[in-house]
Amino acid sequence: MLIDSIYPKSFASDNHAGVHPDVLDAMTAANHGDAPAYGGDRWTAGFERQIKEVFGGEAEGFAVLNGTGANIVGLSLMLGRYDAVICPESAHIATHETGAAERLLGVKLITVPTEDGKLRPHHITSRLGALGTTYEPQPRVVSVSQVAELGTCYSPDELAALAQTAHDSGMRLHLDGARLANAAAYLDCDLRTLTTDVGVDVFSFGGTKNGALAAEAVVVLDPSLAHAVPFLRQQSLQLASKMRFVSAQLSALLTDGLWRRNAAHANAMTARLVAGLEGLPGVSLAHPAQGNAAFVVLPKNATAALQSRYLFHYWDEDAGMVRWMTAFDTTPEQVDDFLDDIRKAVGA
Amino acid sequence: MLIDSIYPKSFASDNHAGVHPDVLDAMTAANHGDAPAYGGDRWTAGFERQIKEVFGGEAEGFAVLNGTGANIVGLSLMLGRYDAVICPESAHIATHETGAAERLLGVKLITVPTEDGKLRPHHITSRLGALGTTYEPQPRVVSVSQVAELGTCYSPDELAALAQTAHDSGMRLHLDGARLANAAAYLDCDLRTLTTDVGVDVFSFGGTKNGALAAEAVVVLDPSLAHAVPFLRQQSLQLASKMRFVSAQLSALLTDGLWRRNAAHANAMTARLVAGLEGLPGVSLAHPAQGNAAFVVLPKNATAALQSRYLFHYWDEDAGMVRWMTAFDTTPEQVDDFLDDIRKAVGA
Amino acid sequence: MLIDSIYPKSFASDNHAGVHPDVLDAMTAANHGDAPAYGGDRWTAGFERQIKEVFGGEAEGFAVLNGTGANIVGLSLMLGRYDAVICPESAHIATHETGAAERLLGVKLITVPTEDGKLRPHHITSRLGALGTTYEPQPRVVSVSQVAELGTCYSPDELAALAQTAHDSGMRLHLDGARLANAAAYLDCDLRTLTTDVGVDVFSFGGTKNGALAAEAVVVLDPSLAHAVPFLRQQSLQLASKMRFVSAQLSALLTDGLWRRNAAHANAMTARLVAGLEGLPGVSLAHPAQGNAAFVVLPKNATAALQSRYLFHYWDEDAGMVRWMTAFDTTPEQVDDFLDDIRKAVGA
Amino acid sequence: MLIDSIYPKSFASDNHAGVHPDVLDAMTAANHGDAPAYGGDRWTAGFERQIKEVFGGEAEGFAVLNGTGANIVGLSLMLGRYDAVICPESAHIATHETGAAERLLGVKLITVPTEDGKLRPHHITSRLGALGTTYEPQPRVVSVSQVAELGTCYSPDELAALAQTAHDSGMRLHLDGARLANAAAYLDCDLRTLTTDVGVDVFSFGGTKNGALAAEAVVVLDPSLAHAVPFLRQQSLQLASKMRFVSAQLSALLTDGLWRRNAAHANAMTARLVAGLEGLPGVSLAHPAQGNAAFVVLPKNATAALQSRYLFHYWDEDAGMVRWMTAFDTTPEQVDDFLDDIRKAVGA
Repeated sequence: MLIDSIYPKSFASDNHAGVHPDVLDAMTAANHGDAPAYGGDRWTAGFERQIKEVFGGEAEGFAVLNGTGANIVGLSLMLGRYDAVICPESAHIATHETGAAERLLGVKLITVPTEDGKLRPHHITSRLGALGTTYEPQPRVVSVSQVAELGTCYSPDELAALAQTAHDSGMRLHLDGARLANAAAYLDCDLRTLTTDVGVDVFSFGGTKNGALAAEAVVVLDPSLAHAVPFLRQQSLQLASKMRFVSAQLSALLTDGLWRRNAAHANAMTARLVAGLEGLPGVSLAHPAQGNAAFVVLPKNATAALQSRYLFHYWDEDAGMVRWMTAFDTTPEQVDDFLDDIRKAVGA
Repeated sequence: MLIDSIYPKSFASDNHAGVHPDVLDAMTAANHGDAPAYGGDRWTAGFERQIKEVFGGEAEGFAVLNGTGANIVGLSLMLGRYDAVICPESAHIATHETGAAERLLGVKLITVPTEDGKLRPHHITSRLGALGTTYEPQPRVVSVSQVAELGTCYSPDELAALAQTAHDSGMRLHLDGARLANAAAYLDCDLRTLTTDVGVDVFSFGGTKNGALAAEAVVVLDPSLAHAVPFLRQQSLQLASKMRFVSAQLSALLTDGLWRRNAAHANAMTARLVAGLEGLPGVSLAHPAQGNAAFVVLPKNATAALQSRYLFHYWDEDAGMVRWMTAFDTTPEQVDDFLDDIRKAVGA
Repeated sequence: MLIDSIYPKSFASDNHAGVHPDVLDAMTAANHGDAPAYGGDRWTAGFERQIKEVFGGEAEGFAVLNGTGANIVGLSLMLGRYDAVICPESAHIATHETGAAERLLGVKLITVPTEDGKLRPHHITSRLGALGTTYEPQPRVVSVSQVAELGTCYSPDELAALAQTAHDSGMRLHLDGARLANAAAYLDCDLRTLTTDVGVDVFSFGGTKNGALAAEAVVVLDPSLAHAVPFLRQQSLQLASKMRFVSAQLSALLTDGLWRRNAAHANAMTARLVAGLEGLPGVSLAHPAQGNAAFVVLPKNATAALQSRYLFHYWDEDAGMVRWMTAFDTTPEQVDDFLDDIRKAVGA
Repeated sequence: MLIDSIYPKSFASDNHAGVHPDVLDAMTAANHGDAPAYGGDRWTAGFERQIKEVFGGEAEGFAVLNGTGANIVGLSLMLGRYDAVICPESAHIATHETGAAERLLGVKLITVPTEDGKLRPHHITSRLGALGTTYEPQPRVVSVSQVAELGTCYSPDELAALAQTAHDSGMRLHLDGARLANAAAYLDCDLRTLTTDVGVDVFSFGGTKNGALAAEAVVVLDPSLAHAVPFLRQQSLQLASKMRFVSAQLSALLTDGLWRRNAAHANAMTARLVAGLEGLPGVSLAHPAQGNAAFVVLPKNATAALQSRYLFHYWDEDAGMVRWMTAFDTTPEQVDDFLDDIRKAVGA
């Protein structure tokens, strides 16, 4: 199914977008002579410096290859042999990673149903009966996604409360930041405000959905954990031999705020789409669209009509709910054309 | 340690080279509009067709992110819960992957000492006492590397004999082909001659060391095994979301024999280096140089002198043995300059 | 906390009971001269024959050491690297085994909320969306407990329907039979009626709670699976070197229907207890008591008063629900004394 | 193959013996009324006190079910996600446990060839090149068996040197003490002299081969590690529900030096056997017999003749080497009869 020959534009995923030209230019520029493998090159050194500039001097950044890899490497730093992770039922680690957490980490995921994809402190405290109970895995990590999988964002205060609740019970806070850039753009704040400043211990900073080709960062804010990353990154199949090209991608995004421009644009396109849906018959927003995704309920015949022209997926077919996503390269015209077709499909 | 600012050239690893321009061009060309994520795009379809053209109609190719990942995904297809792999003591899976085989696959590696990094049929048969013994993991896979880690190549007949021996005892043959291209170039044969035609069951075809940025292929020749790859590739953290850019790299190497030109050139540069060593006092070749690596014993003071100007590593410090590697982009001039410095270092 | 010096009787667990004298006698009788280790002795041969007599000629029985071990060994026969188990949220494997399934098997447990601890076919079919979806572990096994963890029994028809539903989708049915004897006694049927005849593939037959010291059987009804047990039993730490003493326990229970007498007596004592609760103020049965456990809601001050004299636990403290269990050696007098104290505690 | 009907006596394994009457009596005595499950009973409390009396106040003892289980639980306390164990090539954990270490712990075993089954400090130091190398698992534990698998004993000084060497490099020392009692009897020293006093961190104390039915102790001497045992023991399938009967076995062995009487007798029987072999044509001892095992090379036709009447195994068939073992219940008459038959078999 080749989008470019059939469909005008995909609204299925920000992974359907290509690579931002500045990122590709940075990769091309890095293709110059020899460089040590596995890090130790100057692009990686630059990326590591940028991570400290953005997230603070104790932050250690490690370039990895994909989002599931970033989650597994990050979580592996904090989990022993009989530990559990508390996360929302909708967490990517629980639903979309082919059981990597259970298989590769051997961990039990304590999944909590939520209304909007966001975990609250009481969700954590209500699962702490396991602490000290020898027949139950011990909760050691709380993991949340920012932006959450249902398109909603945690405020800094909400994250701080989760960190506090986790730390009060001897747990750590992990953040799946595959779309952290979108959250910072939506909340109009620094990346640091959502991580270092609120007490996150380990998180990922997603590059791929933000305009990179294949690059994510694992960032460790707890200095006692960072020494293990080089071992676990390689063992977890996340070490690039020609690492300069991965570092160069992340570095490009972190230079002159490209990450924010990309995320803000993607968010704006979703906002434009959501605004255009207002008042359409039978069309409603299932969750607040606080990033670059809109979860929309619409009539099934309208969905069918639209899917014949646009690539996107049901999120919950029974509920008639679809997910529409925009990316750094979605144009206003594409959104407007899509809205035209939506209006036709719902008979507005 | 930034090679390009300090060293004239790295002879440490073919991973120190950059990306072949044709590969980078192919990636740039793929950066056009939207494409489905996780495969399903036209570049991936093209790559899959090329794999069939090169390796035969039953071959199924899957793009992954790095060599260790390719080995783990490939081996995972063939191993159950109480199985073992027979491999040379020098195998990359046994020595350089931070225990990924044991940790991620739970497998025991039955490592066999060899003279030259190459496994022989009697090495296999002498380890088969475990078969049927319930207190021992069961040998299910024989894994060899082509080119082997000590720079030596298996002939097609040698591979066929290993496959026969493995199959005779109900085992499968896996081939770590991180440098399969170099082997085919050295042996002046088709890739198929070293895989499909000799009875290999699953192998990797390395792109990265051959001029790609980060791209390897897992190729499955036993049709009963291929269905599991999509699940295991994702679970094993080897699935690229924007897969078109990984497929495009492999596709570029498979187009018009770029893989062979790159490998043949790298091999020729090693041959030139080895030829230049002849007769130098205190310098000897530890193993036949049958690819793009030379394992050379030289006086330690000479090594020290050279390492102040060139990046390369001891392979066995006690034995005074170093590994020198060349890549697709090594120039004759660089080899000749290096030889000049070697001659000076050994006082020739 | 030494029950016999403080408490008149434990109603906390059938694991608090001792060993039936006939079982201990059988162990003593087996202590005669030398015998091959790890099975191959005549007691094990006898046990294996009895399993075939009871469960049919294709049944293969394997003695193991504890209930969690029996579950892990049994499940390990049926699960590959990216598979999932569908089970009730209350399943012992999900709640009381310190995450052994996730850690040792690497499996995802798809836990389904139920009213009464019993899985229904629609619970299975509603979870089958994962089949064929590469980002989700694949459901391969349905696992239920008989008696279920909430004291309820599946009828043979209910089990047959689960087996049919599982098999229709290429899955297998596993049964945690830690209290299978109690179910057969309650339903007044053969063990075979609840296993072989209804399409169970692999199950455990619990000895310990039925009067043994430490002995469970893994029984494999699918002949294609049995060959793996000896390897997996040892690797899973469930192989007794002096196996004759484990086999002798199971053999004693399977001789002259001792298992049924023990189970029927334990069930009768629970029935006597439940009958005595009828009409007590503030006391209600949370689930039908279809084995040797009663789940009872009673006022918290009454619970506190009773716990000062009897050992038993809250099952759900918020709901004020306790679990009371009886065993093969509980006497009518002990039940009647307990009922006297319950009546006092609730002011009846 | 039923020994007692065919063979006069097994010399194959100390696991072929039965249970010492005092152990069985202790189990029978424990079968009195109710007791809390999973420990917390008075027999377990008594066992825990005895462990402290024997091994010192910081020692914490945990009853488990078999020797492989004791090794896995013990090792699991000391190993992270990318760690390795250095052990002799002949170690039970490497050769006889169906890959449990690799599968359940995910660990790489760095196996070292030895002459006599005993590891020396230089074996350790020569493997420490891996420390700090990110592509290699990190050696964290040295594991040795006492008595070693080839029937040889470490002196206290030898153990102390191993502990020192391990600790000097940040590693811990684990001791597989399946036959620790035999070593203490052979060396005529306290159990403490071989463990607490020499710097062992975690070890097992084997009951089963010493006259128990199925009982081993994991003893933790490093107080920072003990808290994890209850979780790991259950998750590792080594928790007995009716634990009083396991504790009672270990307690019986630890009472009035029964362990030493049993071990000393078994050793004496091996010494008697070895003494009787002296001067027999073609018969030689392969290793010093420093416990209850003799490794003997004898002519193959003699082996064949003896195996028709006695149960025992080749240890190394190519070398013509067999292992003969004695147990707590082997009688001098049985040894003498065996010697008569050996003399006949070798034509002496």
